[in-house]
Parts: sequence; C-alpha cells; structure tokens
Amino acid sequence: MAGPAPGPIAGCGPRLRDGGQSASPLRQQVFEHVRAEGIATRSGITRALGISGGMVTQLTADLIQRGLLEEIADPPRDAGREGARGRPPTALRVVPGSGRVLGIKLSEDVHTAVVTDFAGVEHGTATRPSDHRPRELDELTEEVADLVAAARAEAGPAPLSAVGVGLAGMVDHADGTVAWSPFLARQGAPLKAALEDRLGLPVHLDNDVNMLTLAELWFGAGRCKADFAVVTIEQGVGMGLVLGNRLYRGARGMGLELGHTKVQLDGALCRCGRRGCLEAYVADYALLREAATALAPGSTAQMAPGDLLDRLFDEAKAGNRAAATIFRRAGRYLSLGLSNVVQLFDPELIILSGARMRYDYLYAEEVLAEMTAQALDDQRPPARVEIHAWGDLVWARGATALALSVETERLLGEVAP
Amino acid sequence: MAGPAPGPIAGCGPRLRDGGQSASPLRQQVFEHVRAEGIATRSGITRALGISGGMVTQLTADLIQRGLLEEIADPPRDAGREGARGRPPTALRVVPGSGRVLGIKLSEDVHTAVVTDFAGVEHGTATRPSDHRPRELDELTEEVADLVAAARAEAGPAPLSAVGVGLAGMVDHADGTVAWSPFLARQGAPLKAALEDRLGLPVHLDNDVNMLTLAELWFGAGRCKADFAVVTIEQGVGMGLVLGNRLYRGARGMGLELGHTKVQLDGALCRCGRRGCLEAYVADYALLREAATALAPGSTAQMAPGDLLDRLFDEAKAGNRAAATIFRRAGRYLSLGLSNVVQLFDPELIILSGARMRYDYLYAEEVLAEMTAQALDDQRPPARVEIHAWGDLVWARGATALALSVETERLLGEVAP
Repeated sequence: MAGPAPGPIAGCGPRLRDGGQSASPLRQQVFEHVRAEGIATRSGITRALGISGGMVTQLTADLIQRGLLEEIADPPRDAGREGARGRPPTALRVVPGSGRVLGIKLSEDVHTAVVTDFAGVEHGTATRPSDHRPRELDELTEEVADLVAAARAEAGPAPLSAVGVGLAGMVDHADGTVAWSPFLARQGAPLKAALEDRLGLPVHLDNDVNMLTLAELWFGAGRCKADFAVVTIEQGVGMGLVLGNRLYRGARGMGLELGHTKVQLDGALCRCGRRGCLEAYVADYALLREAATALAPGSTAQMAPGDLLDRLFDEAKAGNRAAATIFRRAGRYLSLGLSNVVQLFDPELIILSGARMRYDYLYAEEVLAEMTAQALDDQRPPARVEIHAWGDLVWARGATALALSVETERLLGEVAP
Repeated sequence: MAGPAPGPIAGCGPRLRDGGQSASPLRQQVFEHVRAEGIATRSGITRALGISGGMVTQLTADLIQRGLLEEIADPPRDAGREGARGRPPTALRVVPGSGRVLGIKLSEDVHTAVVTDFAGVEHGTATRPSDHRPRELDELTEEVADLVAAARAEAGPAPLSAVGVGLAGMVDHADGTVAWSPFLARQGAPLKAALEDRLGLPVHLDNDVNMLTLAELWFGAGRCKADFAVVTIEQGVGMGLVLGNRLYRGARGMGLELGHTKVQLDGALCRCGRRGCLEAYVADYALLREAATALAPGSTAQMAPGDLLDRLFDEAKAGNRAAATIFRRAGRYLSLGLSNVVQLFDPELIILSGARMRYDYLYAEEVLAEMTAQALDDQRPPARVEIHAWGDLVWARGATALALSVETERLLGEVAP
C-alpha cells in the first residue's frame, strides 16, 4: 500500500499537453463565439465566455486589427434594450470573405469538395466519382488534386488558407498519417505531407466522423451545444464527441472507436479481425451476412451489397420475419451500444447520423426506449436522441470547419506552436 | 436531408456551460500548477500554461496578495542556470497552513477522515467503524459529524475552509444530491445540504471513484499526467477520468459508469436490475454467485462474503479448476471492459485500483495482453496499465483534493458563480 508523500511534492514539468482537452486560446474562443453567433455584441461575449469586459475589448480589437472581425451596427432587437439613448451599440461579425478554406470528404461512391469563407459562406463545390479500392498514396493524392482544382475553378481565384480532408479509417490528426483506411493500400501513409507537397497548401486530416461532428457543431443539430455525441452507422459504426465546445479525439488522438467496443466476449467476427465488436452486429456487412438465409434461395445471386440490403429491408417491411429479425437484432445491439455511450459520457444529446439511418429499424421507438431502459436510472431526463441523414456535402463542410479551426488556432494562439 | 444554412447563422446564447470541460480560470490554473509542483518559478509557470510572462506576474501577485502563495528563494538546482549573476531568482510555493480542508471517505467497513492544509500537508486523521446498511439521511449526517469532530480534535483548532465527502453510488456533484447509494435508504437524498446544515461548513460531494481519481492526480500515479483513466474493482466496477488535468464527470456530471456498460446482450443479472453489465461478471458478488458450485458442498455455509471470496481465491491458487475458471472468466471480461476504455478514450495510462486488486487473476499478464489484443492495432504503443491497491486514507485525501479544488475555484474564479 503506497501512501502519498506527506508534504509538498517534487516538480512535474509542463502539465498542459496539446493532445489533451486544454482550452483554446482566448482570442480563438472569442473568434469562434462570433463565428457561431453570426452577429455578437461585446457584452454577449463577456457573458458567454465568462471573461472581463476589458479583456473582451482588447481581444476583439486585436481580431479586428487582424482583419478577421468587423464592427457593424447592432441589429434592431437590441436597440430598445441597450441603445435607446445615445449612439446605437455596435456588434461584431466575421469579415465576409476574410479568408477561404476548402473541405473534402473522401467516400466510397463519390469524393466531395466545398469552398467556404471564414464566415461559413459557400463559394463553390465539386464532386468526383470514387470506389472502395485501396489505393497507393500517389493515386489518392492525384484524385484529391483533381477534386481541389475543380472546386477552385468554381469558387473563383481567391486564395485558400488551408484544406481539410476527412476519410474513413484510423487517422492520426496530430501527425497527419493514416494508420489504416479502406482508401489506402498501405498502413501508416503520410497523407498530410503528400497532399501538402502536391497542393502547396496546409492540409489537415481527420477521420470522417470527427468531421461530421464538427459539421454538427458548426452548422447542425449540435450548434449552441457545449457537449454532445454523434453516432454514425454506415459501412461501420463511428462516434464523435464534443466536450466544452471542442472536438474530443481521445487522450492520444485516436479514441471514440465505438464500432470496435466489444459487446460480446468471443462474439461475431468483425472486419477488424477481432470478435464481438459492436459493428459486427450493426454495420452493413453484419446484416448482409445473414441476408441469404432470410431471402428466397437463389434470389440474391449477383446482387450488389447495397441492393441486397435494400431488398432485405423491403422484405422485412413486407412481413418476412427472418429478414425483420436481422434488423431487430441489429437495433437491439445498437441500443446496447448507445446505452454504453450514455453510461460513460452522460450526454444530453446523441445525434444519430449516416446514410443507413433510412433503415428505420435501427432507430425505431423501441430501440431508443431500450437504450434508455438499459442505462441506470438516475432520476433525470434520459439523453435526447436526434436522427440526421446528411449528404456528403455536409461532411465536406465539416472538413472546412476542421481546416478553419486549425488555421485560426494557429493564427490566434497566444504562444507559437 | 437537411442542409446547413448558407451564410452566417442566428445567435446561440452563452456557449460555455459549467457542466462541460470548460477551462478553469487562469488564476486557479496557476495556483494548481504551483501546488502540484511544490515549488515553481514564474518562468516555469509561463512555459507550463502557455501564457505570457506579464500575465503570470500579474496572476501570481494576486495569489500572493490573497495569502495563497508566497515567495521563497529558488532551490539550488536553478541557481547555476538562471541566477549565476545578480540576485537569486525567487520561486513560489503554497503558503504552508494557508487554509485547511477535511476529506471523508464513507465505506462499508470504516469511515475515514483526514485534515490537510492547502499545500497538501496532513494535520490529522480519524476513523469510525461502519457497515453496509442503508441509513436515513439524519443517521448518516450524525455519523459524519462524529467523524469530523474526531478529526478536528486531532488536527487542532485551525479553522476548516470546506469538507469533501466521497461515497459509492450515483452522486450529483453539481447539486449535492445522491441519486442512489448503498449508504442511504432513500433515493435523491440532499446530503450536501444536510451536512452543511449540521457542520456549518461548505460541503462538496462526489462519488468515491472520482475522489480516488483526484487522489491519483494530486498525489499518485497520475501526478504530472494530463490525461489518464482510473478503473476500480471493489463491490462494483468504477471509473474515473482526467482530461486536460481536470476531472471529467461526463457532460451532465454522472458519466463514466463503466460497471454498467453492457458487455453482453441479455447477459448476467446485475445488482442494478439490468442484464449484461460489466460488473455482473467482475465484481465481488458476481464471483460469489458461482462460489458454492466450485467449492465442496457444505463447506461454505455461513461464511461471510469476504471470507468466502478469499477461500475461493485460495482454492483457485491451490489448483481447484472450477474456482480458477471463475476468476479467469472475470479476468477475461475485465480485459474486454478495459479494451473498451482504450477504444473510446485512447488513454496513455490506465490505473487499476481498489482493494480487490489483490486477486491477481484480475490483472494477470494475460488479462492485460488480452486487453491489448482486443483493441484495434493502430501501430502505436498500447495503453500502459498500472496496478495500485490503496487504503481508505488515500481515498479520503482525494476528498480533501475535491474540497480544495472546488474552494479555490470559487475563491479564484474570475467571474462570480
């Protein structure tokens, strides 16, 4: 039994690390607050961030001087309250066109790009057909370069500050490598470096679910929420988390692999080669494994996986009990996975997102009721669940949010990195 | 498919919430850094917190003026480097005896209290026998008051700033109520208010695992770590988490219920009344359920649960294969639970803690190897696991850390709550 030292203890060295959930610099918090609000007053910033009025004045002056914020007349809703006497109070907004970023979502059917300015206004988009082949790094780099050129052609000549790229897989945001992705033939590919070389622009990578989570935070159901979880069901099961208004990636940057949390010891075989992972019960390939058993013999030969899944779903809806039980079991496992999210993160809001949300067995009333029933009763309202089915363009907008967030953090950090 | 708004978006209201992982006020960060270091220089604070030297000068002056920090001559290790010419640089430390807090751990065998000052120096302890009966709120309040009186008698007359109390159960730290605890006969008991009434002091409650996690952060294996997880195995399975040097309680304050995450759909019955919870496979009561089957008929009649568990463990060690398989299965489920912690939080360090860690089947080599094998291979070193078996006094010290942390946060907050 090792007791603690009796008195003061020897030195620690620096205690704040970049990878942790340390706060963003105050300047960035002010900028992001104004960006999220659209139009914000200094007194609103004071209240929202809990810092002194003097500090807000100083920080906003700095942001105006850097050309990121500008003053405008405060909108009428406040005139009666604060501005009845004397000159109308001024408000702040992000300078329209103050800078541009490009966001990219790589996916199995189509790659998507979008150009926005710092205020979030869209200036151009582009798409290119894709497929799920693993590629060499060079080939993927060329695909991205082609997509970027197309989006820039539509958006016009204004220069880009940075590019954000999101893709499925295990992406190390901090060092810009991809430990594993369905799009890359080799593990550990230095995709960020390769793209920066090819594009001549700063590139920021992340996994696609983190990007979608940023899109929810900046533009979607998570806007104005300090803390929420996003769970996606597509080829796999993904999770994103916002804590204190910021994306949380796990202590070392590669957490939140909900799809590979185990829900059964020695359970069903997962694509990752292990057994009992949540996605081995919920993802497309898990449902497809039993499809042939549920459908008429011979009826499924040579169907594409997507068509087969649609067929299975239609039959389940039409009364095929074997087909229905496949979706029902997936729904029960999903409710179990969601109850684990509730139990560990205690979110007020879980956003269920992804193309497969159209299979409504996965989020039927009884799935959400079972999620609540599986979690401890702590005498509070249960976590709220919202369903979204967003297109790839929104994921790409999440990538712009990623690029903008990293760029402004760099620009506005009080200490150089 | 709901697209995002095309341009700037309407207002959000305040974006930072108390329950989230918002940063502590800078003054508190400075104070906590000095407290953790024991002795710290201003330049060390500048480096560690990433704020300007001017701001550090201002904040430390304020802390000195409030009587919390004092200047001392910098210890010799720095003299050659920085202070060779001119006067020796000054360092800072927490003023010894600058304030006192009392920490309490309520447990099934014994209640423990300890008095420390703000610098962490211990001034007195007390214990009182306990039991696992559910009590009325009045009775528990009197037990605590008796314990506090005994600890104060030993610590001397210096006044206390606050009391921290940790107990098993679902404790709402923010509002000071206990949704459920083995020590309380009624759900939702306003324990904080009752204790404040009785003691005439500010009281801060938390569940015992959060307290132990604070003890690890302030005094133990988590010192100098910005991010780590603590998993405890006792009557139940608990978890604590430090993110960015701060205790994380979940978005709404009652997360991290690892023991009640589900590891099997419709699995073993848990004390909570649900099925398939991790602790229904790992906690004491889970092991005891099968004990009678593994031991000689009649040999276990009228044994106390603790003795029975010891007997089961001894027999497993001595070659009773049925007894061994009980611990081995528990170990496999524990490895599964730990791999889920790795997958979701990606910690560098997991501290396994609790009295039951003496049953070494639970943390045998193969349990830790299986934890690593069950998690995705991301080409990085796996999470490190450390084993601690600490006594109740350390949990009580965690409660002092809780009291001190909340009190200084209140004292030093830049904006009044």
